[in-house]
Order: sequence, then structure tokens, then C-alpha cells
Amino acid sequence: MNSSPNFWPLHQQVAAIARGELSARELVLGYTERLTAFDGTLATHVELSPTALDEAAAIDDAIARGKTLGPLAGACISVKDNYLTRNMPTRAGTDVDELCFPETDSHVVSKLRDAGAVILGKTRMHEFAWGNITPPTRNPWNTDCVPGGSSGGSAAAVAAALCSSAMGSDTGGSVRIPATLCGIVGLKPTFGLIGRTGIVPHSWSLDHAGPLTRCVTDSAIILEALVGRDVNDPSSVNSPDAKYQPPADLTISGQRVGVIRNHFSERLSTDVTASFDKALIWLKQKGVEIHEFDVPNLDYGLGAIFAIELASSSAYHEHAIQRGLTRGFNPDVRDLVEMGRLVSAVDYLHAEQLRTELCKDFAKIFDTVDVVISPTSPITAWRAGQWELEIDGSLESVLAASWRFTYPFNLTGMPAITVPAGLDRNGLPIGLQIAGPPFSERKILTVAAAFEAEHSYADATPNGFN
Amino acid sequence: MNSSPNFWPLHQQVAAIARGELSARELVLGYTERLTAFDGTLATHVELSPTALDEAAAIDDAIARGKTLGPLAGACISVKDNYLTRNMPTRAGTDVDELCFPETDSHVVSKLRDAGAVILGKTRMHEFAWGNITPPTRNPWNTDCVPGGSSGGSAAAVAAALCSSAMGSDTGGSVRIPATLCGIVGLKPTFGLIGRTGIVPHSWSLDHAGPLTRCVTDSAIILEALVGRDVNDPSSVNSPDAKYQPPADLTISGQRVGVIRNHFSERLSTDVTASFDKALIWLKQKGVEIHEFDVPNLDYGLGAIFAIELASSSAYHEHAIQRGLTRGFNPDVRDLVEMGRLVSAVDYLHAEQLRTELCKDFAKIFDTVDVVISPTSPITAWRAGQWELEIDGSLESVLAASWRFTYPFNLTGMPAITVPAGLDRNGLPIGLQIAGPPFSERKILTVAAAFEAEHSYADATPNGFN
Repeated sequence: MNSSPNFWPLHQQVAAIARGELSARELVLGYTERLTAFDGTLATHVELSPTALDEAAAIDDAIARGKTLGPLAGACISVKDNYLTRNMPTRAGTDVDELCFPETDSHVVSKLRDAGAVILGKTRMHEFAWGNITPPTRNPWNTDCVPGGSSGGSAAAVAAALCSSAMGSDTGGSVRIPATLCGIVGLKPTFGLIGRTGIVPHSWSLDHAGPLTRCVTDSAIILEALVGRDVNDPSSVNSPDAKYQPPADLTISGQRVGVIRNHFSERLSTDVTASFDKALIWLKQKGVEIHEFDVPNLDYGLGAIFAIELASSSAYHEHAIQRGLTRGFNPDVRDLVEMGRLVSAVDYLHAEQLRTELCKDFAKIFDTVDVVISPTSPITAWRAGQWELEIDGSLESVLAASWRFTYPFNLTGMPAITVPAGLDRNGLPIGLQIAGPPFSERKILTVAAAFEAEHSYADATPNGFN
Repeated sequence: MNSSPNFWPLHQQVAAIARGELSARELVLGYTERLTAFDGTLATHVELSPTALDEAAAIDDAIARGKTLGPLAGACISVKDNYLTRNMPTRAGTDVDELCFPETDSHVVSKLRDAGAVILGKTRMHEFAWGNITPPTRNPWNTDCVPGGSSGGSAAAVAAALCSSAMGSDTGGSVRIPATLCGIVGLKPTFGLIGRTGIVPHSWSLDHAGPLTRCVTDSAIILEALVGRDVNDPSSVNSPDAKYQPPADLTISGQRVGVIRNHFSERLSTDVTASFDKALIWLKQKGVEIHEFDVPNLDYGLGAIFAIELASSSAYHEHAIQRGLTRGFNPDVRDLVEMGRLVSAVDYLHAEQLRTELCKDFAKIFDTVDVVISPTSPITAWRAGQWELEIDGSLESVLAASWRFTYPFNLTGMPAITVPAGLDRNGLPIGLQIAGPPFSERKILTVAAAFEAEHSYADATPNGFN
């Protein structure tokens, strides 16, 4: 592994900067150099901040003068291109120029800056967050493969050490899917825990902001900086906790972990199954109790999230549809946005009812266990241009397959994290998903950190990007 | 006024029963006699409890044995025909026999029984709560006129002293409209404060349960008996307060009262305007500060509530639509239920967005004032068979006119009460509506009680029903 500070996890970088042992300016310069070297191939960033170097220099100066800065001081964080920024344009992944987004800081960007972060740039996303591919971004583990999406640029950039960490958004898995496909950590917190003002909406009741990081501790630190009510987001809530970092000893003995037998064990790649089975054995060795459940309502989950997502997306884009601007969208996204107009309110309400039932089902499960685990995705990264793949002997669309295990936690709004869990036979990353009841972030981060500590893999940057 | 105990407000009845000065059995017998005498004309009840007299006798016995009973012991409360009851059938106002409702107690009925109430019977409602007329029920103030709806039977029964109090449900004004048209008190509490399990749904996100009573204190006492989380209603919340009865001195000096200039002052009958102006003068004399506001978003409120109500109703009735059972509905209700299928999810979501904006608008108003007031309805009771009426020089449908001032508080979920505010030139009751921020029930009940105390009118039973 390369020992340059650009490869360190964010928490080590900010600690070294705070002690005056690392220059924030050097960190920015290092990432700029790496972006120059690798982003031609990976295409992770769509904008680089014109002020990053100056901001970093100001941090170095302040530290030299003995000032105490915020918990993210000097960290180089890139944000997905649907986060509004005052000093860079926002395009939300579209080429349609008529859609102008304001040049103002989103709530999250503002909080990141308050905590001392340098916003390094904007990362590439699947157009309007409506897809899991993120063309033309490539996966650093195999540049013939996609990084997943819709926060594909964020995931590939973090995996290739092109920024300290990145922000994404997750409507059906758009933080966790690219994180798992790129071998990093991705956290979707409880619905409402991170305010979304100034993030271009995809589907209001499903959208979550979340960090993509090189390790679990980094996710916890970023989350700590981002919680707190966002008065302009009606879904935003105050955080019941202030501290999210896992305890130093990482003991998980006695924890009760749930495994859902149906849905999450259907149609997986052989290597993903093997990885998950190993994780279960490891948990048992650690003194964790495993409980098994069935959630029959998950059979209707896909219909429910599709109805909600299609309708919400069309409601958001209605003005663009009426002005004929969707003609400029990519065909896959245009189809989805225009199709959503055909969802009836009756279907929408039935979908919302299923959602309520699923929340009840999970609430019951969490009477018995602390967290539930599953593979993050039934498949690993697929080749760019590939639309279908064979899983467990049958063909399935990559879009349909890739979000099967993540969307239940968007419907229910429960927190879920993905943590690297080995490589498949082709050397492509597999992820373990840990989810919990609302506001159980500290618990899922602790289990994730314990797993990470004994499966040291997260800080391995793929070959070719060292 | 008739001095028989059947005319007393509920709180006096339960106090006299608790002291052993009034027999619960006599009270039931008195109401039964009155129902026999008057309900041929008024048609307020569709069922009378076969066990009411036995339940009352058991209460008398317990009191004679020195037992302390619940706060509603011996009160004769009738419930709208959409509340499930274990000992009477539920029809929700429909004649379609294929729609069978379980014979089990709804959450509210169960709470009422726990508090010692005798459930006297089931009151007539507009079919499936989708209308403001409640045929064939008549208004005791003028039996050529309708009682309003959809809780028309409950309102007419309370006004004519055919029960101690009654329960209704309010989706767009269905407690407050008939209460004001029949000259009684009607309370729609904060959304979620009274659990709705076992009430046949009309529109989940707009439906509220609430009492119709002969005075404000009765509403407070019933509310106290009904709050508390209903675990089977996902919208149910725990009550932040336990006590709702207004303080004895009823001081309102120094309270800040808001008046919304637009919407609530448009297209009113002259007599309603005069009554409201008098109420304002009275409030000022009482040392209340009046503040004026505009809420431009109210211009879009009707479209929003219609989209939500139509869609929700069709979602609830989808099974009946598919089985062809809506053919048996009354034509007005059938049209609405079948029309709702045509609402798109995009329209539904835009309606929900308007709702969020209205909540924000009102939250801002409640930074400055304690409550807002308006007339409850722009019109008084209309004649049965009349579909349109002239208001302020132009024709309007009675349905459209009657709920204009009530539905904003269903969209926003804020508590609102109507209290009698005099009679119009035809001797028909007018109401004053007092609304407040979420969970401000005690505040609105106090203002209502202060108003009631100096406008002694609530206990006047209309001529012909003494």
C-alpha cells in the first residue's frame, strides 16, 4: 500500500493536520496530482473547486497560529453533483443546460465547511440519481467495470484515493451500491438525520444523504459533523445522539444479530453467498447471537418503491416534462421520468401502506435483535455496457439485481451501512450490509467497525491507482 | 329550557351520577323516550344499543355499593356509524350489504367504555363520510333543513338532547360542520391525538376522531378519556397533556388571536359576517390582541385536499370498485369514489407539498399568536334537497361552500373547535371556529369556553324538541 497521506483515512489526515504534522495544502496538491494522473480513466469528478488550495492554505495558517479548528479541518471532501455549491455549478448529472441550479451551498456543504472541510470537487452521478451505472465513470478495481450508482463518482474517487471522503445520496441504495462495488464504506443514516436542503431531489420520502469513506470511523466523524436539524427540510429531525464513533474496544459479544431468510438470500452470486456465510461464522465466533426471520411483505417491496420513486421523480420533473426538456435526458432516465406520470395516486397510497407494514415488520424484528445483516448487493461490479447478467442460473437486469438488498432500508428509513467483505473470484469487492432500527447509527457503526478491524481490506487501494 | 337531566351537559350528568343523585338507568330511559318521540322526524340514530339499559343499571348498582367509576360513568354517548362496535352492526352509512364490518369495539369505543360511558347507539352519517348532508337526518333547528355532515346524526342528536354527547369523524370538517349547523360544540383534535383503529377510514392522512357536545367542558372531558397511544394506528401519538379542562377563571386577557384576512373572509353570508365581527369586538373587550395575516397558499388548498381525499377514498374502496359494489353506493358518493382513481400520483404528491407549505405558513403565524379564529362555516343550514345556494351574490354548491373554512385544519392536522355564536335571521345556528398549533387543545378549549360563558346559547335546545 502507498503510504502517502492521500491514502490515509480521513480521521488520520485531520488528526495529523490538527497536530501540524501534515499540511492541508499538500493534501490538496496530492489529490490534484492524482486526479490529473487517474481521472482521465476513472472520470470520477465533474468539477474541481477553484478555491480548494486557498482554503487549505488558510487552514495551515490558522493551525500555525495555534488555532483550534473544526473536526474535519483540512479533510478534502468531494460531493456528488446533486449537492448545491456556492463556488461550483451543479448539474445533477444532466447535460440539459436549461435546468439551472442555484449556486449556493446546500445544508450539508455548509455544515462540512463549518467543520473545516475543504470541498475538493463535485463527483459524477447517474443522471438525476435515477440509475446504478454512472457513465462514464469506471470502477478502480477493474476499469472495464462500472462503479455502480447513482453516487458512482463518489465511490470510485474514494476507492482510488482521489479525495479524503465523498458525499453521496441514497434513494434506493445509491450510496451503498457504489460503495460495495468499489470496496469502500457507505452509510445511509436514518431518514431525516442529515438535512437535505440544497440536494437536488429524486424522491423526497426516500432520499437520504450519506458519506462514502475509506473506513467506518470516517463515516462516524462525518456523521457527527452533519447531524442537527435542517430547518428548511421538513423531514429533518434533531439527532438523539451527538457521538457516533464506535467505542475503542469494539466488543460485540452478546449482540443479537438478525438474518432475514427470505428476499436477502435469494438469487445471489456464489461468491457473495460464500462471503456472507464467512461473516456469519465470524460473528458467531465473536459471541454474537444469530436470530433468523422471515418478512413476507418484502415480496411486494419492489412494486412499492418503484411506484413511490417513479411518481416522486415525475412530480419533481413535471415542469421539465411540460417544457419538453426531458427530450435531452439520457434515454433510460427519460423513460423512468416520463413513465412516473402514469402511476395513480391509488397505487401510490397502496405503496405507502406496504411501507407502513414493512416498518411494523422490522420494528418487531428489532424487539429481538440489535441489528440485521445481509450482503449489500447480490452481485459485484458488472462490465460497462452490460445490462443483464446471470445470477444463480437465471438472467436478471443489473438495475433490478443491484438494489434488491438496499431498497428495503429506503422504504423503511432505517440506517444501513456497507463495509467491505472480501473480493470475488474476479477480484471485485463484495460488501456486508448492517442495518438497525431508526437512530441506531452508533450500533451499526460499531458492528461495522468490529468487522472491519478483523477483515483489514478497506484501506487497500486497487492496483493501478497507487 | 327543559330542566330534565337529559338536557344537562354531560359533565353535570356524570357528576350527579357519581354523587348518586341521578340514576344512569333513568338517563338511558329518558333518552330512549325522547328518541321514540323525535327520531321519527330527525332520523339521527341507525342503531340503539341492546345492552345500554343493563350497562346503566350496573353503573347505578356499583355507585350504590360505593364504587368509584370512570370519568364518563353513566354518560350516554352515541357514536357515528363508522365506529366499529362489538354489540351493534356497523354500516358506515351504506346500504351495500356485501360490505361487512367486524363486530368488535373500535379503539375509541373501548376507551369510552373503559371510562364508564354507556354507548347508547350508532348515529347516521353521510355514506362513507363522503358528503356534508347526511340524508335523511334533519336539523332540529328547522326540520326542513339538513344537519350538515358527514357526522350529521351525531350533531342533530346532541342538539335535540337525544344523547349526552356523540362521537364523529372529521376529514374535511365532518365534526365541525354539522356541529355548527346544529348549534353545538364540535372538536377536531390534533392529527393523531385520538387513535382511529376500528373507525372505517375515509382518507387516512386527513381523518380525525372527535366529540360533538353540548358545551366546551364536555369536549374536554371526553378528550381526556380518549387520548393515549393507539398501537394499531400508525398515526397515533402519545398526548403531551393529560388535562384538557379549561381553568376555572377562563381568563383570556393578553392572549394573542390571529385572523386570516384572505380565504376565511371570502364569500360569507351577511349574518355569519356580522356574528364574526361581534366575536372580534368581544375578544378585544376581553383584552385580547388581534393580529391579521394573509396565507396566499390557501388559494390552492381546495385542489390539494380534493386530490388527497379522492385518491385515499378510492384506495380504500378499491376492492369494492373491483367487485362492482360501488354500483350500490348513492350516486354522489359513487361518483367521488370512482373519480378518485383518476388522480395521478404526481398530483397527489403536489397536493402533499402544498400541505407542507401550509403547515409552514401556519407555524409562522403561531410564532406570533396563540390561536386563530374564523367563522366555522360561511353558511348556515340549507334546505334538504338544495344543492346550490347564493352567497354574497353568487351561486355556489353547498358542498363546496360548507367546508371551505374547516378543511385547512385537516390539511394541516391542527386542532380546531367550533362553538355556537348566535343565530342568523332565519333562526339557524352560526359557529365560531378556534384553531391552534398542534397539541394546543387546552388553549383552544379555554378560548372556546370563555366565549361560550358569555354567549350562553349552547344549552338552548331548539323549539319543538323540549
